[in-house]
Amino acid sequence: MPQKVRIALDAMGGDVGAAVVIPGAAIALSRHPDAEFLLFGDSAKIVPELDQHPRLKAVSRVIHTDVAVSMEDKPSQALRRGRKTSSMWLALEAVKKGEADVAVSAGNTGALVAMARFCLRMLEGIDRPALAAIWPTRRAKCVVLDLGATIGGDAHHLVALAAMGGALASVLFEKPRPTVGLLNIGVEEIKGHQEIREAGEMLRSMNLPQLDYIGFVEGDGIGKGEADVIVTEGFSGNIALKAAEGAVRQMMDLLRSAIKASWLAQIGYLLARGAFRVLREKIDPKNYNGSVVLGLNGIVVKSHGGSDAEGFARAVDVGYEMARFDLLTKINQTLNRDGGALAPAPVAQEAVS
Amino acid sequence: MPQKVRIALDAMGGDVGAAVVIPGAAIALSRHPDAEFLLFGDSAKIVPELDQHPRLKAVSRVIHTDVAVSMEDKPSQALRRGRKTSSMWLALEAVKKGEADVAVSAGNTGALVAMARFCLRMLEGIDRPALAAIWPTRRAKCVVLDLGATIGGDAHHLVALAAMGGALASVLFEKPRPTVGLLNIGVEEIKGHQEIREAGEMLRSMNLPQLDYIGFVEGDGIGKGEADVIVTEGFSGNIALKAAEGAVRQMMDLLRSAIKASWLAQIGYLLARGAFRVLREKIDPKNYNGSVVLGLNGIVVKSHGGSDAEGFARAVDVGYEMARFDLLTKINQTLNRDGGALAPAPVAQEAVS
Repeated sequence: MPQKVRIALDAMGGDVGAAVVIPGAAIALSRHPDAEFLLFGDSAKIVPELDQHPRLKAVSRVIHTDVAVSMEDKPSQALRRGRKTSSMWLALEAVKKGEADVAVSAGNTGALVAMARFCLRMLEGIDRPALAAIWPTRRAKCVVLDLGATIGGDAHHLVALAAMGGALASVLFEKPRPTVGLLNIGVEEIKGHQEIREAGEMLRSMNLPQLDYIGFVEGDGIGKGEADVIVTEGFSGNIALKAAEGAVRQMMDLLRSAIKASWLAQIGYLLARGAFRVLREKIDPKNYNGSVVLGLNGIVVKSHGGSDAEGFARAVDVGYEMARFDLLTKINQTLNRDGGALAPAPVAQEAVS
Repeated sequence: MPQKVRIALDAMGGDVGAAVVIPGAAIALSRHPDAEFLLFGDSAKIVPELDQHPRLKAVSRVIHTDVAVSMEDKPSQALRRGRKTSSMWLALEAVKKGEADVAVSAGNTGALVAMARFCLRMLEGIDRPALAAIWPTRRAKCVVLDLGATIGGDAHHLVALAAMGGALASVLFEKPRPTVGLLNIGVEEIKGHQEIREAGEMLRSMNLPQLDYIGFVEGDGIGKGEADVIVTEGFSGNIALKAAEGAVRQMMDLLRSAIKASWLAQIGYLLARGAFRVLREKIDPKNYNGSVVLGLNGIVVKSHGGSDAEGFARAVDVGYEMARFDLLTKINQTLNRDGGALAPAPVAQEAVS
């Protein structure tokens, strides 16, 4: 990787587009002065924004295209209309051509995953992409995947997710051997689905040097911080993330209306507002923006479509770190080197009788 | 149903047993003076508790047994050791024999579901039991099922869950035609699993008089109150519930430690503590205790194993209401009467050309 981190941005992605992406990039640049940007999209919209951020302008190149994938496009429509021409595709292609180290888009998730898969192709041994997000816990943070890039999957898929999530966590949290748990339920006698039990057995017998498999984790174990990486197929991962987000939002609403209902509570709130700010800071989805699309020959980060400039900057931060600390190499090592996750299981030595 | 509501209690169930169950029953009796109780378990433990609650004692009968299912017993162990003899089994059997209108147990979930299935048998047309819980939402409350009585399931299973959940919601919320949504994710082009889409089509074409099918609901739609009933198979239902519970607990922890860190915030908290009490009241799991085991020839309510007397009383309240308002008849109507959920789909009339 060259000295600079070269970041390709889909400047048209998200609910707002350039008016969020460009100021967001400017914020990220202030935190990472060694970043450079390729900005793909409608130059008539990008350039006026860029003119307001001269430092960003100095390290950016604008590549014009009229075509943008809309937030409503289905993946197949996006591919049909936007392949080779859209700002989303061109940002991904820059990574493919080696002109950028990472692509960041706030465009629609389904389209981005489909295009990334089509443009960058899957890593050797990986069948399907996955979306990984950073989740706040009581103890610190954890990585949860897959959040819905695809749904379902056998034990090998779960093991691949564990390996990729482990590599991501080792980069993000600077842990050489992050703990990994499989999301499961504790009610049934024989716990959970067959494929989860199988994946657990595989991970245990592999005993990978790059990750520490700790067993099953239930839904409430995510927030408790029971593991650095929580692995599950995309359906339940998506449900878990959204149910938790919904519960938090609902609680904030309830608290707000309870406080509004009493003037004493309002005074109390004013006095305690420092504490509330700490809380909001810790749980604000904006601070956890930036899901990583894993499993590809290239690094792609998905920003929330509705995020503001500060939120988008966080997604750029994630992309920067993934590129700077060479996520792809780490993933490949975990998957393939020294009896990695995709190597055949070691044969037990026969005991001498 | 006779004038009185007769409630069979597994007095040994839960982490504590009689010392929670008996005071809990006393609290529930104060709210429902027309209840009567059958108390199954070790009379040496039950009677001393009962002596402290003379009003409860006056409407209770103690049926002694030495055998209790432990919280650690696997379902198969519980059945082997506790069938026909344990306090859990005897409470269920009282319902089967028509001596009680409902059974309530805080015993272990897997054992209770297995025993209930074995003792009471499934309703006609229902293959598997389901666990339904009441969930607080921004707007009011909703019913979520299945929370893990079994995992997986085809479209017919989901339709049966919708019908049973609808009947439960109509009793709980006094709505003649509660809204029902299928839990799903919104990322993939063709949303979610095949069986969910199929179930959606079936529910739409059935257009049942007892429930209003509104389509798919995402994970964050549960807390928003998008439907009175949220239907999903047991794995994702369990994950959703626990992830949301975990997020709420985590948030309360964060808030608590943020407030503790500043004396100004502590004063603010004192002033606002009425508002916090309102919040706690609204989200306290204790106030939502009591999951209903659905699909059986009889009403069974599961209390959380770790709940206190007030929590257990809530579970008894749920059981009381289910019996008083004749949940079973409502379920059977929704399932079978007038082209109910289990009737064959109506054949479209041919248009006269």
